[in-house]
Amino acid sequence: MDIAMIGLGRMGANMAQRLHRGGHRVVGYDPGEGARQRAAEAGLEVVDSLAAAVSALPVPRVVWLMVPAGETVDQTLGQLTPHLAEGDVVIDGGNSNYQDSIRRAKALAEDDLGYVDCGTSGGVWGLQEGYSLMVGGDAAVVEQIAPLLRTLAPAEDRGWARVGPSGAGHFTKMVHNGIEYGMMQAYAEGFALMERKQEMELDLAQVAEVWRHGSVVRSWLLDLSTEALKRNPSLDGIAPYVEDSGEGRWTVAEAIALDVPAPVITLSLLERLRSRESNSFTDRLLSAMRNEFGGHAIKKS
Amino acid sequence: MDIAMIGLGRMGANMAQRLHRGGHRVVGYDPGEGARQRAAEAGLEVVDSLAAAVSALPVPRVVWLMVPAGETVDQTLGQLTPHLAEGDVVIDGGNSNYQDSIRRAKALAEDDLGYVDCGTSGGVWGLQEGYSLMVGGDAAVVEQIAPLLRTLAPAEDRGWARVGPSGAGHFTKMVHNGIEYGMMQAYAEGFALMERKQEMELDLAQVAEVWRHGSVVRSWLLDLSTEALKRNPSLDGIAPYVEDSGEGRWTVAEAIALDVPAPVITLSLLERLRSRESNSFTDRLLSAMRNEFGGHAIKKS
Amino acid sequence: MDIAMIGLGRMGANMAQRLHRGGHRVVGYDPGEGARQRAAEAGLEVVDSLAAAVSALPVPRVVWLMVPAGETVDQTLGQLTPHLAEGDVVIDGGNSNYQDSIRRAKALAEDDLGYVDCGTSGGVWGLQEGYSLMVGGDAAVVEQIAPLLRTLAPAEDRGWARVGPSGAGHFTKMVHNGIEYGMMQAYAEGFALMERKQEMELDLAQVAEVWRHGSVVRSWLLDLSTEALKRNPSLDGIAPYVEDSGEGRWTVAEAIALDVPAPVITLSLLERLRSRESNSFTDRLLSAMRNEFGGHAIKKS
Amino acid sequence: MDIAMIGLGRMGANMAQRLHRGGHRVVGYDPGEGARQRAAEAGLEVVDSLAAAVSALPVPRVVWLMVPAGETVDQTLGQLTPHLAEGDVVIDGGNSNYQDSIRRAKALAEDDLGYVDCGTSGGVWGLQEGYSLMVGGDAAVVEQIAPLLRTLAPAEDRGWARVGPSGAGHFTKMVHNGIEYGMMQAYAEGFALMERKQEMELDLAQVAEVWRHGSVVRSWLLDLSTEALKRNPSLDGIAPYVEDSGEGRWTVAEAIALDVPAPVITLSLLERLRSRESNSFTDRLLSAMRNEFGGHAIKKS
Repeated sequence: MDIAMIGLGRMGANMAQRLHRGGHRVVGYDPGEGARQRAAEAGLEVVDSLAAAVSALPVPRVVWLMVPAGETVDQTLGQLTPHLAEGDVVIDGGNSNYQDSIRRAKALAEDDLGYVDCGTSGGVWGLQEGYSLMVGGDAAVVEQIAPLLRTLAPAEDRGWARVGPSGAGHFTKMVHNGIEYGMMQAYAEGFALMERKQEMELDLAQVAEVWRHGSVVRSWLLDLSTEALKRNPSLDGIAPYVEDSGEGRWTVAEAIALDVPAPVITLSLLERLRSRESNSFTDRLLSAMRNEFGGHAIKKS
Repeated sequence: MDIAMIGLGRMGANMAQRLHRGGHRVVGYDPGEGARQRAAEAGLEVVDSLAAAVSALPVPRVVWLMVPAGETVDQTLGQLTPHLAEGDVVIDGGNSNYQDSIRRAKALAEDDLGYVDCGTSGGVWGLQEGYSLMVGGDAAVVEQIAPLLRTLAPAEDRGWARVGPSGAGHFTKMVHNGIEYGMMQAYAEGFALMERKQEMELDLAQVAEVWRHGSVVRSWLLDLSTEALKRNPSLDGIAPYVEDSGEGRWTVAEAIALDVPAPVITLSLLERLRSRESNSFTDRLLSAMRNEFGGHAIKKS
Repeated sequence: MDIAMIGLGRMGANMAQRLHRGGHRVVGYDPGEGARQRAAEAGLEVVDSLAAAVSALPVPRVVWLMVPAGETVDQTLGQLTPHLAEGDVVIDGGNSNYQDSIRRAKALAEDDLGYVDCGTSGGVWGLQEGYSLMVGGDAAVVEQIAPLLRTLAPAEDRGWARVGPSGAGHFTKMVHNGIEYGMMQAYAEGFALMERKQEMELDLAQVAEVWRHGSVVRSWLLDLSTEALKRNPSLDGIAPYVEDSGEGRWTVAEAIALDVPAPVITLSLLERLRSRESNSFTDRLLSAMRNEFGGHAIKKS
Repeated sequence: MDIAMIGLGRMGANMAQRLHRGGHRVVGYDPGEGARQRAAEAGLEVVDSLAAAVSALPVPRVVWLMVPAGETVDQTLGQLTPHLAEGDVVIDGGNSNYQDSIRRAKALAEDDLGYVDCGTSGGVWGLQEGYSLMVGGDAAVVEQIAPLLRTLAPAEDRGWARVGPSGAGHFTKMVHNGIEYGMMQAYAEGFALMERKQEMELDLAQVAEVWRHGSVVRSWLLDLSTEALKRNPSLDGIAPYVEDSGEGRWTVAEAIALDVPAPVITLSLLERLRSRESNSFTDRLLSAMRNEFGGHAIKKS
């Protein structure tokens, strides 16, 4: 198929490459000149405007957005849709909020444009191993872009599916990331406990390697952790500072909105917030209270 | 009544003083010379050995231990009991583990010595305001020492009770402290949230003061927090470092042993542990994992 | 002062009564005939329309809303404001979301109407004991209604304050309720642990009563718990089902939005959601997984 | 090699079978006649006493225990060791507490008997796929039994290792299970959230299947969950009741003892306790408190 890939950052460039290798014609565009240049050097067909990307495609056109979630998607759609015509399809493969995706699909449908929300997992390994793709949208439109999904997925018929109507792809990806937070936190707590148990003289990478084969906790995240621990067993030089990119917050909000208690996913998010506190007011007040009622010494900052 | 107070630290000295002021004769002893001297200067009758404390009392003797929980209690009992005789009574007013108290009561009972476990709450304010006393042990023995309990409590017949058999006093105090952790954490989180909401320009001490009168969250801990926030509104100079003294751990262990889910008390303890982590391995591994799968930048330490 | 009280439910009727007893003239209105009748029987001056309530007041008029948070407030304002004129003041004493209050204050300011958000705590006890009032809004407007606040509060100058600009009153009340959830959960967990420890034969009301005097955990919520446990020691006939009324959810969302980890308040909310789950999918999937990997028996539903 | 397998339950019988198929001579014993009979029918060499098992082996003898953790291990060792002689080796492959394993290794060392603690993961799938084996003990003794470990593990040199001194095997397995709880809970919460979101019409097994290929959350537990959801999409007939088998409790206790905050592992355990509460006193007291201060209706049980 012919496709335009809008956004050639880490994820977009890799996906464009995988599609290209899979025999599709990919026209790439990114507002950043550096990103365009790197993509061109990697052998992709690159243009220097959204309009050029669209006009390079045969109708009906298929445009894949791989841009930062939020306002950038709306801005890109605002610039893109005037160049599109009835029957064209836009796919949002980023980490958009599913409610935005439902809204956008409705708006584009008014101009007879197809809109597909595609939750994409796989990170930097997707180029080689393929991406896990959760797709939401009209069934006929999803069928139309199926050749692209087959190429991006790890295997033709595995690792992708239309999971439901508009929004279902990003909803599912949001939950995926919530689960990811919980799993990561569970591993990290366990390894931290082993690290602290010094008399056992455990080699954490060795334990992780044993677990990779036959254990109940084997997983891809464990594979990656094993690599990280082999390269840097004591995790020197890494600050205890954990970012979050939004999907975890949405998962927590959604769970509460639906009255679903999700304590582990929620705590995993809160632990990340906690990792970024440098002078917690909560803890200072606790220390002050202990001093107040018990005369317990306060540690001076 | 006549009583020996063994242990003249912050708590023991105050309790001895309150008993003294209440008309009891208190013979004080502490292994530390400084503590003995301070107690003597405060007007207490002080002796310089356990044996002297015991021999200064009429039979049946009543000895109140206010020493650090754990081995010190066993050591003190080991030195004390040879000087005691049938019918004498020992009271442990410290924060002992209730299981130790059950064991000790049994051991002393074999020598016909009474043993009472008394959970004591009130902190440094107890001298003025009286102590809340949760008493475990044989009903007749508790009756025998009731005059002391009436003096130590905030009011003759309020703030103390025999709550059950041996161990019940310290069990109840343990749970009290678990609840205390949860309440403190709830307040601290709430004030931290208000502190962060800078556009509201809240004066935390003012809010606390409003809440002290008529609100659902009014409490003594709130009174103390109000004082702390009035004196030091931004809690300057206080490190975000929160100690724990053991009873919270026991509460968590007991709850799990009895299959009672106590998530808030438990989390309150874990948050204190967290406050003392300076370079969390958990968080470093989380950061390493994110880099591993997503190429997300690691913050360097 | 003269004031109209709009909303004569449990809270509104009591507040109207307290104002009336305090020497103010209160004109009451409620859309429900039953509520109006009960208020009239209680000796209040009751009218049968918003318009009548407004026209019964001297200018500048002061109208206190005590209606359900959310749409009802907007609807009431929509019906009310056409009858108001420059300089009149509306107070929202309910549990509105602080963001709504900021929006409403702005909207009313365009018509030169004053708007005060007043977080009100005290529940059914406020009539006798007075209410804790956290007030947000323009300082001059708050000064104008101060006589009402002095009457509603537990003491003239205690238990109320203008804590900040528009929204600050409801923001503060929101946090108050978040703290309330955490405190309640801490107590409830502790009492549940004591209830389970059957060999101690604890009388929970007795323990609570001891704690009320001199202990670190003494509070108004403990006073109320003591009463509840005295009347019904085993809490017979009460379902393990805990409602929540919204402020807890807002507190959790706000804490996450501000990157303030508030695990205990958050967990307290999630525990309430959990109490209302009758056939948790989470738990059923956990049971299914255990069977899947370990052959562990599944309990049949 | 020649080996006696003591305990022919689900795990022991499978491990005996895998060793047998791998070319080792396995003499099996179980105190239960049914278990012995099933093992004999499955082609194993079965004897009817511990003494017979031992005497069937050449020296130095190797005996593998696969019996319930706790007292049964001590009882079995008490009956077994009189039949053993210097140089013989006992392996505990069950889920023993690592502190017991350290104690037992010391006790057996006094009689010059080797003792190896082997954490075993893999569940009912181990027969086919091999077991993940975390081994603690003297390096020379572990080397001696390496042929068995190579056969039990998924691949000769993968999925097993001597991870440290006595106790390290069971310590590591304990942490493994703690992580397992956290991962399971994270998945279960995520699927529960998707199940509740009815307007998305998600097919949970389909989503799980997509995630199995290329996603960040792919894992063996996800493979198993997918199977469970395919067979029984709405998990009908499964009670929301989740057992725990002890290692999670030990992990929580160990983490607290070492001052390592492990909130997600801890909460995962507490959620299991919660799943087994049928009439939570905590929740009933919360409901009673709400009624007490706010007049909120209590749901009758």
